[in-house]
Amino acid sequence: MPHIELPDGIPGINGPMMKYPETAQHLRGLAEVLLRRPSSLTPAERELIATYVSAQNNCHFCTNSHAAIARHLYGEDRTIVDQAIADFHQAQLSDKMKALLVIAGKVQQGGRRVTEEDVALARAAGADDKAIHDTVLIAAAFCMYNRYVDGLATWAPEDASAYAQRGAEVAEKGYLDRRAEDV
Amino acid sequence: MPHIELPDGIPGINGPMMKYPETAQHLRGLAEVLLRRPSSLTPAERELIATYVSAQNNCHFCTNSHAAIARHLYGEDRTIVDQAIADFHQAQLSDKMKALLVIAGKVQQGGRRVTEEDVALARAAGADDKAIHDTVLIAAAFCMYNRYVDGLATWAPEDASAYAQRGAEVAEKGYLDRRAEDV
Repeated sequence: MPHIELPDGIPGINGPMMKYPETAQHLRGLAEVLLRRPSSLTPAERELIATYVSAQNNCHFCTNSHAAIARHLYGEDRTIVDQAIADFHQAQLSDKMKALLVIAGKVQQGGRRVTEEDVALARAAGADDKAIHDTVLIAAAFCMYNRYVDGLATWAPEDASAYAQRGAEVAEKGYLDRRAEDV
Repeated sequence: MPHIELPDGIPGINGPMMKYPETAQHLRGLAEVLLRRPSSLTPAERELIATYVSAQNNCHFCTNSHAAIARHLYGEDRTIVDQAIADFHQAQLSDKMKALLVIAGKVQQGGRRVTEEDVALARAAGADDKAIHDTVLIAAAFCMYNRYVDGLATWAPEDASAYAQRGAEVAEKGYLDRRAEDV
């Protein structure tokens, strides 16, 4: 049971976002800018970083919902998402994405863990300033979203298949143009 | 040196927020709603939670800047801030604030660490749903801000006294109505 009163049957972050719309406006706005607006990383790549960080934080709702979005965006290459969750070093990913996931994983543990060498490796593999910025802020932001979801003990469907349909809708419409109860 | 190119001499989060205004808009907006808009917790109490979490995350810039804001807001009781950073259990704080700092500290470590007992203790000491919500989201949000600041290796003044004047200004004006280079 959630630690505070939330609307019944609304999964994950959507419950506290419905109940507290003033903060929700910025939580949604940040997700839209960070994961959808123009960047040197594709939306699929950014959703993969969000999914990986959420998995490292052991956040069931965020991992499953963003994995579903990422799978839809990767399309035929959708198996990359589960490879990356299991062990991104072995996944069919570019050296650039692997270097960025190293940075994201360090940010998840604590910002000071990111080294000059980590950043130099990402640059050598083709990452620009915007890619490094977005990777750090996506990893940091999911350390927030994950803690908001789990720190309030929100309810979420157990079965990963429950996330597929909403994932496709969010992948197509983004984080702003959607039903009131959505992430 | 920062991991990406940022404006010279702009401290902490202000550098990446100047360079990347689209995300900054929501980072500032979230801080304003969460730390300043009506809540069952005072702005001083909310800044104290932000300061405590930043100290737990070992973020020099955020700890010093929010400690300076909190000291200004606590006024004559300003020593509470340094007591809380050192050991909040021994600080001159209400049982409610101590119970909420326990919750904030657990969120900092990971959302799932917050227990029903932690929340029951906070409620017994007078915390309502809004106080619990705001505590969890402030703690979660500073896990983001701290990682954004340190994950990009931003520059910040070493000396804690450098933060006092800006702390007073932010305490009085909030997070939106201010100079371009501010948090």
